Amino acid sequence: MSIITVVGAGMMGSALSMPAHDNGHTVRLVGTHLDREIIASIKECGFHPTLKRQLPPGVEAFQIEELEAALEGADLVIGGVSSFGVEWFTQHVLPKIPSHLPVLSVTKGLAEGPGGRLVPFPHYMQAKLGQGKSLSLNAIGGPCTSYELADRRHSAVCFCGEDSEILERLKGMLETAYYHISTSTDVMGVEAAVALKNAYALSVSLAIGLIEREEGVGCQEAYNPQAALFGQAMREMAALVHLLGGREESVAFGVGDLYVTIFGGRTRRLGTLLGRGLSFEEALAELEGVTLESVAITKVVAKAVRTQAQQGLLRLGDFPLLMHVDEIISQGKPVNIPWKAFTYSFR
Amino acid sequence: MSIITVVGAGMMGSALSMPAHDNGHTVRLVGTHLDREIIASIKECGFHPTLKRQLPPGVEAFQIEELEAALEGADLVIGGVSSFGVEWFTQHVLPKIPSHLPVLSVTKGLAEGPGGRLVPFPHYMQAKLGQGKSLSLNAIGGPCTSYELADRRHSAVCFCGEDSEILERLKGMLETAYYHISTSTDVMGVEAAVALKNAYALSVSLAIGLIEREEGVGCQEAYNPQAALFGQAMREMAALVHLLGGREESVAFGVGDLYVTIFGGRTRRLGTLLGRGLSFEEALAELEGVTLESVAITKVVAKAVRTQAQQGLLRLGDFPLLMHVDEIISQGKPVNIPWKAFTYSFR
Repeated sequence: MSIITVVGAGMMGSALSMPAHDNGHTVRLVGTHLDREIIASIKECGFHPTLKRQLPPGVEAFQIEELEAALEGADLVIGGVSSFGVEWFTQHVLPKIPSHLPVLSVTKGLAEGPGGRLVPFPHYMQAKLGQGKSLSLNAIGGPCTSYELADRRHSAVCFCGEDSEILERLKGMLETAYYHISTSTDVMGVEAAVALKNAYALSVSLAIGLIEREEGVGCQEAYNPQAALFGQAMREMAALVHLLGGREESVAFGVGDLYVTIFGGRTRRLGTLLGRGLSFEEALAELEGVTLESVAITKVVAKAVRTQAQQGLLRLGDFPLLMHVDEIISQGKPVNIPWKAFTYSFR
Repeated sequence: MSIITVVGAGMMGSALSMPAHDNGHTVRLVGTHLDREIIASIKECGFHPTLKRQLPPGVEAFQIEELEAALEGADLVIGGVSSFGVEWFTQHVLPKIPSHLPVLSVTKGLAEGPGGRLVPFPHYMQAKLGQGKSLSLNAIGGPCTSYELADRRHSAVCFCGEDSEILERLKGMLETAYYHISTSTDVMGVEAAVALKNAYALSVSLAIGLIEREEGVGCQEAYNPQAALFGQAMREMAALVHLLGGREESVAFGVGDLYVTIFGGRTRRLGTLLGRGLSFEEALAELEGVTLESVAITKVVAKAVRTQAQQGLLRLGDFPLLMHVDEIISQGKPVNIPWKAFTYSFR
């Protein structure tokens, strides 16, 4: 059995201690400077206060100052930070990881590259590390909320990375009867698809708030409008994955992830508030203190799409839903879904 | 303005009277022999008893014996029967329709052709009509439940047919501020995608019942397992559309339709009961009297897939979810989702 060190004690990183523990591995969970109270709680009684679950017995908790000790003898490092922690992870954690030690990151998102390019985090991190150091940087995509993984519900994900042998090894370490792992060398496609779902889950959730505005809160949910937006979201996600050089087979991981995110917490709540007619500023005020990866990814992708449109690399008109969500977020425009822009004549 | 005659007074055919009426057309709604009470109610007070909505004022109701009168001077015939009524519609209605009069069918499904082929209903109906008569047979696909269309909620559909000029004309007749219409000449792709969603919505719903069995009815819904099945459903649907010769762009109509159907009534209810552990026979008994298009389409498609696999035209292993649902339905096997068959190594 192996030693698995998770750096970042947020919900998803911590939830991975379930399959890791169930496979008999030693699990070391290291909090960032933002996770002090979480780690203190786990050290005291094994309870994770934001995941709201008891971690498996034997999971060892470490404060960030104890990182070196936690990395000692490890066979795998799981990067458990959110997209807002990628810089910190790259600067403060990756340099301490020896080259033979593979990294598997749960972070979903895309980084801004030069000239309007979008870069998946594993590539971004490798570029930041520079040529002096090379690590095996892999990532997890696909539909999996942390709560449900912690409850050992069936969850299907994809591990992506450059080296399929390493991917199969990581799969062997973490696959359980409930945690189902595909592997893919299409880092760009998988990472783009599962990052984009945050932006598009926000857009589908707009329909929930719109109906509440028209018919009253607590009315029957409206699935026709949601489904119209879901279909358009899939169309735009697939087009973006294709434009970024990702493979078609990777889109399904993003679409499954879109499905689970629409029913998840923060992104749905923001979309619903916007759909009800709140301005972006008002909605943010209601969601005080919540990190919104959906907002971050929408801005990054919309900016890249606009830049690439100016360069003649794509047509802005192919992404009417993304553009509208960005207008709401970045320009304070009211929700006014361009339904007719989603109709096509296929000949 | 035009005269639109709807034949089949089920929920979807009747709901189309909303956009038709809102565009100023004369709407004539003709019941089949199964719709006698519906038509009697509409004649009496305009209320549709299964749609549970008041139809727009001025919608004229006709019993089946009055079909000829209802067709007199019509500009469009909407076929409003379910997949179980296609034979009847083909035999008893189509021969009465003059060649210049286009038909637009709401029926979703696929017919069995020779040698394990699957045939979309417009092609099936034309073949049955024989060479003596040619009609413009078009169809509606895409995510749209009748209740929500009747409530004038935003709904996005696709009209498919051979002739794009006729499609644009039909779109012009029925498009409203809430009814959004794409058009496509890919009859095979659109019809396959939206027919398959019934089979796959059943499969995704299994996860709802499975969790209820494990954690108790009324527990928090489990979206990780649903999302895993949703992703797999999309993968298999796209592969089938491709194998049948449909175009990739048509898959999104089926995936949106899958989304809305999972939250709809009958198919979700059957999947949930099966997931809870009821046998197919027991589940059917609970759903007494309900027509189950999901069961019909699953059997037809699974049979065709098995036949084509025997002919070496496809690999049965590419459709593990469809095969499992068919085993449950056709062979009485218990639900035992082959999760690991949904994991892939993409290199």
